Amino acid sequence: MADKTQIVITSSKTVDEHVLEILSMFNQGVNEVELKGYGREINKLVDVYNQLKDKLGEGVKLENAQTGSEVREKRRISYLLIRLSKAY
Amino acid sequence: MADKTQIVITSSKTVDEHVLEILSMFNQGVNEVELKGYGREINKLVDVYNQLKDKLGEGVKLENAQTGSEVREKRRISYLLIRLSKAY
Repeated sequence: MADKTQIVITSSKTVDEHVLEILSMFNQGVNEVELKGYGREINKLVDVYNQLKDKLGEGVKLENAQTGSEVREKRRISYLLIRLSKAY
Repeated sequence: MADKTQIVITSSKTVDEHVLEILSMFNQGVNEVELKGYGREINKLVDVYNQLKDKLGEGVKLENAQTGSEVREKRRISYLLIRLSKAY
């Protein structure tokens, strides 16, 4: 089931909670996950990625990383979007 | 002069100061710049990129974005590394 799901990193969840969420999705058959972080949550997104790398090692692969900006609530805000795939 | 220079985003400089630094390097003939941000400076790095995009539009291209972690002062810290090239 090569389903692709997007998760937005929020200030209300901790790094661990996001990691747990993604691990359980991978266990339920999701093969690709997009993580998106806006503004101050960008560095939390990178922390989530690194924790996943620590836990899964070669089992998770960084397919793509993209950065840009969007207008949200009349303000232009930066974002980072990474795509991760489950390697096995 | 296809020289590649790496700039580490620091907490002591503002986004504008980093953008100015990169613009002047591009003007002095540097064609490729690597920007690296650690931990909390990662989202500043993305802000610097977006401001450069605003100013130079198609004149600057995001060649590559890479994320990972390194041990610094006995602590593992996340980083984001992006490579920018001057388009004309």
